[in-house]
Amino acid sequence: MNSYNTTDAIYALATAWAKSAIAVVRISGEGCVEMLSKAVRSRKDIRKLEGGRILYCTLVDPADGREVDDVVVTVYRDGHGYTGEEAAEISCHGGLQVVKSVLELMASLGFRQALPGEFTLRAFLHGKMDLTRAEAVNELINAQGRVGKTMALNRLNGALFKRISEIKTIIVDIMSIVEVQLDYSDDEIGEDLTFPSAKLDSAIRALRSIADSFGTGRLYSQGARIVLAGPSNAGKSSLFNYFLKEDRSIVSGTKGTTRDYIEAMCEIRGIPVRLYDTAGFRDLSESEIEEEGIRRSRSLLDAADLIVYLADSTDMTEIDESVVSDPRCIAVLNKADLADVRKDGFLNLSVVTGEGFDMLCDMIAGRLTADVNASDDSALVIESGRQKENILRAVQSLEAAKAAVKENLPLDLVSMDIQEALEALGELTGEVTTDDIIDRIFGSFCVGK
Amino acid sequence: MNSYNTTDAIYALATAWAKSAIAVVRISGEGCVEMLSKAVRSRKDIRKLEGGRILYCTLVDPADGREVDDVVVTVYRDGHGYTGEEAAEISCHGGLQVVKSVLELMASLGFRQALPGEFTLRAFLHGKMDLTRAEAVNELINAQGRVGKTMALNRLNGALFKRISEIKTIIVDIMSIVEVQLDYSDDEIGEDLTFPSAKLDSAIRALRSIADSFGTGRLYSQGARIVLAGPSNAGKSSLFNYFLKEDRSIVSGTKGTTRDYIEAMCEIRGIPVRLYDTAGFRDLSESEIEEEGIRRSRSLLDAADLIVYLADSTDMTEIDESVVSDPRCIAVLNKADLADVRKDGFLNLSVVTGEGFDMLCDMIAGRLTADVNASDDSALVIESGRQKENILRAVQSLEAAKAAVKENLPLDLVSMDIQEALEALGELTGEVTTDDIIDRIFGSFCVGK
Repeated sequence: MNSYNTTDAIYALATAWAKSAIAVVRISGEGCVEMLSKAVRSRKDIRKLEGGRILYCTLVDPADGREVDDVVVTVYRDGHGYTGEEAAEISCHGGLQVVKSVLELMASLGFRQALPGEFTLRAFLHGKMDLTRAEAVNELINAQGRVGKTMALNRLNGALFKRISEIKTIIVDIMSIVEVQLDYSDDEIGEDLTFPSAKLDSAIRALRSIADSFGTGRLYSQGARIVLAGPSNAGKSSLFNYFLKEDRSIVSGTKGTTRDYIEAMCEIRGIPVRLYDTAGFRDLSESEIEEEGIRRSRSLLDAADLIVYLADSTDMTEIDESVVSDPRCIAVLNKADLADVRKDGFLNLSVVTGEGFDMLCDMIAGRLTADVNASDDSALVIESGRQKENILRAVQSLEAAKAAVKENLPLDLVSMDIQEALEALGELTGEVTTDDIIDRIFGSFCVGK
Repeated sequence: MNSYNTTDAIYALATAWAKSAIAVVRISGEGCVEMLSKAVRSRKDIRKLEGGRILYCTLVDPADGREVDDVVVTVYRDGHGYTGEEAAEISCHGGLQVVKSVLELMASLGFRQALPGEFTLRAFLHGKMDLTRAEAVNELINAQGRVGKTMALNRLNGALFKRISEIKTIIVDIMSIVEVQLDYSDDEIGEDLTFPSAKLDSAIRALRSIADSFGTGRLYSQGARIVLAGPSNAGKSSLFNYFLKEDRSIVSGTKGTTRDYIEAMCEIRGIPVRLYDTAGFRDLSESEIEEEGIRRSRSLLDAADLIVYLADSTDMTEIDESVVSDPRCIAVLNKADLADVRKDGFLNLSVVTGEGFDMLCDMIAGRLTADVNASDDSALVIESGRQKENILRAVQSLEAAKAAVKENLPLDLVSMDIQEALEALGELTGEVTTDDIIDRIFGSFCVGK
């Protein structure tokens, strides 16, 4: 059916491959506890352990009797685990040698190494979650910012599935009305047809609203690129560091430091931001700037979602109007603590006192969300291109049905259009799937999930 | 008492700080489940959950009602958990944003972030493990090779504690014989004293044997530095890659690549080896080699535990006898597949056919373990300098007792020496501790363990 064999017993490291206090190896598949029991030495028989119970035990390699590690095993039975099939989680010591030997033990016991997303695929196949929830698992793990995480958790808890189901109910209602007419009329929309146009419109509106949230979802999941530009004495590096400090996010951290620019991740009003400081240019000689520096600066600016242009309020001679006039640019006059000047279109800021910083953050968030009606972060928002495609396909089919009704086309054509919309939504939630869809969705997961 | 407060409720991320399928946050301290319950939304009341049971639930920030993550919580009660006090493990989604928000939630619920090794310290304080086992936890997590891991696991399962206890029983026996004489004699060792010299000797021998294992333990835990040297056409890089390939160790991986040398971790006969290939020298010009290259090569060679000197069997003109004659050097004649030559003291090898490779590994392991009587990897071996110190202190005191008996010194002096030996062993296992010992041992742990 697809590249996943769904009946054998699989294993994977579910935690990160790095030294830590503990690590978790996950196994799943009918009979997996019996398989594991061959390597378990404990007071109790793990095969008789109830689901949802833990067992402290020693893993022993049955091939040579060598102890592998002292572990805690949690057993899942009767569909109560993540995958909906018999499964276990082995919590072992988090040393790399320990993890390596536990993984090797699993392989020697006959388990197969899980493919990316295979545990979640099994959860989907066993009806533990629909496709929108399955995708939300991956989106949650990959969330780079606070708001994006909340949105993904909302979808994981079924918000999208519920909304789509409600809309499907409306469409099925419409369908049944059409079907009744099909059965009794002579296949033409007659004068007496009361086609539920209002219902159709509301379904289209509801779907469009979800599709429209895609931009917001992308913004909060993928984030935005912001480039700090301006003359070298304007305090770009100070502002850069201020952003990182104010964020206090554990995920912050400068990397990719080069002579040309510095790059770091931070969060501004819940939006994950990749921040670029072009301060490095100042270290280049005049001729180097001529040749290469400007080209690179240009390409950073070109790729930016937003430019923060920092001018120096104590020396406004060097302002580059070509950048300031860019529609993506927010112009800032730094060192407000040193000079009491104003300039039209410029925000006064002091990285030293913090004056103006909150307003700058508001402006940045406002600009970035201007096109993507983002207000309530707990509202239903999607970030999956696949979901958007499916929803737009459904909208298209419903629009076609609407047009067909308007043009008095045969009712069976209308019925076909509505059917297509239902199929598109069926694909969205996973009632209808193909190998291609399965591979595309789960192939992007990490191993162990 | 020491820098650890041992009564409050603590939290820490127990898995690695990197994106993964799942992450585990650990909490411990009396009342911690009640504290956690304020953020738990579930069908069941987590406060009534039995120990060793799991609960699937949603963590909700009580401050704003925002959902933090869907998690599985395992509750430990009645001294059954790692720390021996009320505790829980929260298995959450492994995204960095998720982990961050779960950690923030714990802080807001009033938990204190755990210090390094604090969970294991509490396990020690609650009598769940003695100090030798506590140190073994850290040694197990830090084990770099298969054999070192097995040795640490052995200690974690009490092998060292058991052996020390046996020896202490012997010493206590000796002590009681001495005490009897002290009570009834006139404090001098008379003709009628039957001092148990044989017992004392056996205790000293047993302790020395453990102290002697320190070299082996260090070798298998810290590993050895091996430098590949030889002329640039001899195939050093091929042999380097061959070592990494044959190891098939997940922990292998080249890093620190510079123009001067390449460095990688691999395992040879269970010994963790840091392998250096000086092949990069060939890229330097003659003058650069003169100035800097030779100096760096020299310092690499100086720091090596072992040098593998690779000569080319098709061109033996370039052999550097000053390196070959180094007592740390194993001399190899590579390209045995191309030329059927022999050279005294050189091992024939072909990286192409693999001929001689097993013998080379045996020679390397033999040389490295020559000074450290390493035969049975499951035998009792220590790697902690602290443990060695304590054991040698005990040996010293017992030797003093032996000398005192020989010199007919007053029995109470003998008694004091024996008492000191018991105290040294008491420190070893943790019956006697000081803040300093506690800080030194647990301060080297990772947070979350």
